[in-house]
Amino acid sequence: MKKYTVSFPSDNLTVDVSENTTLQQIIIEHGLDLEFPCGGMGVCKRCKVNLKSPAEDEFRVQLACQTKVREDLLVEIPKKQKSDKILLEGIERKVKHSPLIKKVYLDLDPPTLEDNRDDFTRLISGNENIKTSLQTLQLLPSLLRENHFQVTAMLMGDEIIDVEPADTTAKVLGVALDIGTTTIAGYLLDLNTGEEIARFSDLNPQTKYGADLISRIVYASQNPLGLERLNRELIDLINRLITRATSAHGYSAEDVVAITAAGNTAMNHLLLKIPPRNLAGSPYVPVVKQAVAIDAIELGIEIHPAGKLFSFPNVAGYVGGDTVAAVLASEVYKAKELDLLIDIGTNGEIVLGNKKKMISCSVAAGPAFEGVQIECGMRGANGAIDHVFINEHEEFAYTVIGDTEPEGIAGSGIVDILAVLLDVGVIDKNGRILKAERIEHPIGKKMAGQIKDVKGKAAFVIYEHPESGPKVYLTQKDVREFQLAKSAIASGIEILMQEYPVKIEEIDRLYLAGAFGSYLNHENACRVGMFPRALLDRATSIGNAAGTGAKLILLSEKEYENSKRISNKMTYIELSSHPDFNGTFLGNIGFVT
Amino acid sequence: MKKYTVSFPSDNLTVDVSENTTLQQIIIEHGLDLEFPCGGMGVCKRCKVNLKSPAEDEFRVQLACQTKVREDLLVEIPKKQKSDKILLEGIERKVKHSPLIKKVYLDLDPPTLEDNRDDFTRLISGNENIKTSLQTLQLLPSLLRENHFQVTAMLMGDEIIDVEPADTTAKVLGVALDIGTTTIAGYLLDLNTGEEIARFSDLNPQTKYGADLISRIVYASQNPLGLERLNRELIDLINRLITRATSAHGYSAEDVVAITAAGNTAMNHLLLKIPPRNLAGSPYVPVVKQAVAIDAIELGIEIHPAGKLFSFPNVAGYVGGDTVAAVLASEVYKAKELDLLIDIGTNGEIVLGNKKKMISCSVAAGPAFEGVQIECGMRGANGAIDHVFINEHEEFAYTVIGDTEPEGIAGSGIVDILAVLLDVGVIDKNGRILKAERIEHPIGKKMAGQIKDVKGKAAFVIYEHPESGPKVYLTQKDVREFQLAKSAIASGIEILMQEYPVKIEEIDRLYLAGAFGSYLNHENACRVGMFPRALLDRATSIGNAAGTGAKLILLSEKEYENSKRISNKMTYIELSSHPDFNGTFLGNIGFVT
Repeated sequence: MKKYTVSFPSDNLTVDVSENTTLQQIIIEHGLDLEFPCGGMGVCKRCKVNLKSPAEDEFRVQLACQTKVREDLLVEIPKKQKSDKILLEGIERKVKHSPLIKKVYLDLDPPTLEDNRDDFTRLISGNENIKTSLQTLQLLPSLLRENHFQVTAMLMGDEIIDVEPADTTAKVLGVALDIGTTTIAGYLLDLNTGEEIARFSDLNPQTKYGADLISRIVYASQNPLGLERLNRELIDLINRLITRATSAHGYSAEDVVAITAAGNTAMNHLLLKIPPRNLAGSPYVPVVKQAVAIDAIELGIEIHPAGKLFSFPNVAGYVGGDTVAAVLASEVYKAKELDLLIDIGTNGEIVLGNKKKMISCSVAAGPAFEGVQIECGMRGANGAIDHVFINEHEEFAYTVIGDTEPEGIAGSGIVDILAVLLDVGVIDKNGRILKAERIEHPIGKKMAGQIKDVKGKAAFVIYEHPESGPKVYLTQKDVREFQLAKSAIASGIEILMQEYPVKIEEIDRLYLAGAFGSYLNHENACRVGMFPRALLDRATSIGNAAGTGAKLILLSEKEYENSKRISNKMTYIELSSHPDFNGTFLGNIGFVT
Repeated sequence: MKKYTVSFPSDNLTVDVSENTTLQQIIIEHGLDLEFPCGGMGVCKRCKVNLKSPAEDEFRVQLACQTKVREDLLVEIPKKQKSDKILLEGIERKVKHSPLIKKVYLDLDPPTLEDNRDDFTRLISGNENIKTSLQTLQLLPSLLRENHFQVTAMLMGDEIIDVEPADTTAKVLGVALDIGTTTIAGYLLDLNTGEEIARFSDLNPQTKYGADLISRIVYASQNPLGLERLNRELIDLINRLITRATSAHGYSAEDVVAITAAGNTAMNHLLLKIPPRNLAGSPYVPVVKQAVAIDAIELGIEIHPAGKLFSFPNVAGYVGGDTVAAVLASEVYKAKELDLLIDIGTNGEIVLGNKKKMISCSVAAGPAFEGVQIECGMRGANGAIDHVFINEHEEFAYTVIGDTEPEGIAGSGIVDILAVLLDVGVIDKNGRILKAERIEHPIGKKMAGQIKDVKGKAAFVIYEHPESGPKVYLTQKDVREFQLAKSAIASGIEILMQEYPVKIEEIDRLYLAGAFGSYLNHENACRVGMFPRALLDRATSIGNAAGTGAKLILLSEKEYENSKRISNKMTYIELSSHPDFNGTFLGNIGFVT
């Protein structure tokens, strides 16, 4: 039997293995840091690695569980992933390193009669475009002389925002935030190298004032301290997350000099403590569409005293900075061909276009996919059923995040369950859970026992606790909720195509963004009618594209400018007032059997 | 005898007078508001009026005391002048009206589904270059809706610095300040029309911490609260002056939206509370040379809450924003020919150049001319002897500001006295006050009795009180002080000419700026050696050119940019380290007899 050499340079491991050994076997045997949640079935796609033969120039991405060794290989396992699935994915893009905030160490010559330039001109080496604050000028003469004219200037574009004693360039961190309605995700980056130091996430603490945007906007508008409170909750969490992430890696929160934040329009307003009231009613106008750059301290964010916060520009009341960030990350705005981008969070946003023209709309689609509004729904954390399938024994099977006892169903699991139940005839084309005796499909018949009456309502039971009974199940009402959500997305796509106008064949790429999009089984998503089957082979999951966008602008002034161009260029279609929307929506409610 | 009709439209007066009646006679007879401090001798030039015949298109400027009526005339007396001479003059220049701060009234359409632009985009009518603060955004939605979308935006360049309810464009004021070491002069302008509403002035309250710059810099640097205190004195005075000037004209201090401030480099630092310490010792480096624009509130200046303060850029440690302002006002920086500008305040600054090249220096010349360091010296206020001459009876004579009992000698009076005493041989070429018996000139002999021993020292007595004895006099030490000052100026001119290099014949214009320059008798200034006689017929007094410059930038964004260009373009010659300065200085100490 042939032998090949497989190296994992980052793990200092080189092994010789027999032909057709899978990478999964090697990784498990040597205890390398990669998980196989679906047990190696190639379904969950969480075991992606970068690999190449020693002779090749470029790495390619493959699933470790599906890769059999048939040549010598160099393998790189992506950085450690946390157990919280939501944030794991994210497309990577190379950008010219030019962070929004920079530190520059200056070792200046002291003044002489021959060189008697003023202190500030000395600091800026005669670059007359550079400005600074009065406070910096007031402190400058002592700072220079007490430090032998060796100082570090902190720059935002053409502005010196702070001057520090000696050389402090070693620690310059940035934080990219994706502020979702339900979840806050963050990335701690080293702004010197562009490297990611840590990822973190937490539930948006505003959820206690309402799971959906409208109820939060109403809370902010109708309570005297409502806006203050919602803003404070968010700021407090951001402060906690940054303090925790920095101290875990030997840094302090004061090392963070810049924060970029991608959020939908309402989140953007709540983050900036700008009244969101008029987003709640027609004509849904934001207060500000433009990107906002402010002193972080203005919002009580506890980072470097001169640190800045940059928000993404919005497009309209319900297409916000997170969509702009996703368009930036996916490069739809640069595309020569035609791209369709679906970003599904608590709300869903859809963008159709390319470098010439981009149109967008928003659909109230998300909660069902995030596990909200689904009785046993939950986000993609430990205990969540994330994938469901009919296994090789033609039996109903599923995987659970963390391999624990099931606690609920993640969004991707719901899509899978519905696809399976439609395939095996447990649910009909109208979305009805059939009575056991009406099921005809042989595999469906085997599952008939799972159709039960739970709390007086028809439900399909996925997991039953040995003692307490049905624990994780899908109710008839859940199916209805899902139908509303998937129809909204399908209808949004249709209206955008009609408005552009463009035919389905002309769309070259479908990007599925958002945590949910990352774990979605594309085949099943088509099966349940979320997007047209014609796009199946053109679909790519791009993970948390909004978060990636936030990282991009943190590292690149040019990408920040691009984000502004995207916002200015993209037009918005208000579906609620579109004459064809209701008809299209009703037409997409059912399933195809 | 022929009769002519003379009209004063602003005073509602029309009179018929005989040929050759002077305007002075008419003005005094009818009690119009114009003073003749030199009694109508054509010396002080304070009785300028604008006049034309009814058939002419343009007014010309003439001295009322020297104008004999020989045709019908329309006469306009310039606005009321205060009794304090220091601030009365000032060259006027037309500028394109584009104030640094503008108010714009906006009557906007409320949003609809067809026009659902965000509030801020609506406000800026899609001009994406315009920015604003977070605070403005936070207040914007309520402000727009509570005022039916009728608001006033306050703009600084591309930045909306405030939004106010309804239409507040009627009251938009600006204040131009000339912050001298000894005197603060100010102009209250209507920024809608560019018109001057009021002038005001006061002594710089910092004088109690030292008359000269060095002692104030030392005070600011050596006392823990020194800088704070000097700054506070200035700010408090500015607040008082603005409150008084605005309320006297039916406005409030909050109607003032912009302040421009021209001051020397040290005053600039003290105004901005920037430590001036390094200006006191070689190599005399300022902290900042650049123009600074800040929120007035940052310095505790109590004008409009969003009002701004703009300082002029400096050139070097001892050529500051006031010189830049004077160059701006005199348009030396635009000249095709070669100009020499001498601005004499408490310090003296000299600029030589044109649009191609400008060089400058500073001389410690001023105090003698401002009446400081002269025993009976005083500033040009009531009671000051401002002009001295030999009258038609060949007797020593003088005029006193306010026609009161003499209290002291103004700078212009000192120049005159010395010129007269030199002419009549009371002082010799070395500056010595001769003993009575050594005087040879017949007029000098008549004045010999005025040479007395005052407090044990030789002095020339100008005014003796009937009871208490010598009250206003010039001591031998005063003459020595003056010699140092005039030599400094003459030597500064010489060194600049040498450095440029240029010959005296090549200089096309001499501008004499500053209050002192305005009242100076040019002939006498040459007589005492302040500037070369070759320039006498090319000399023009341009009054408080620094104040005029401050008005110009207040009214014109373009002039503000020009001031920055002037600062960048002008080079500075440090006389104290110039190898030829000491020799030149000693060569200019004496007088020419």
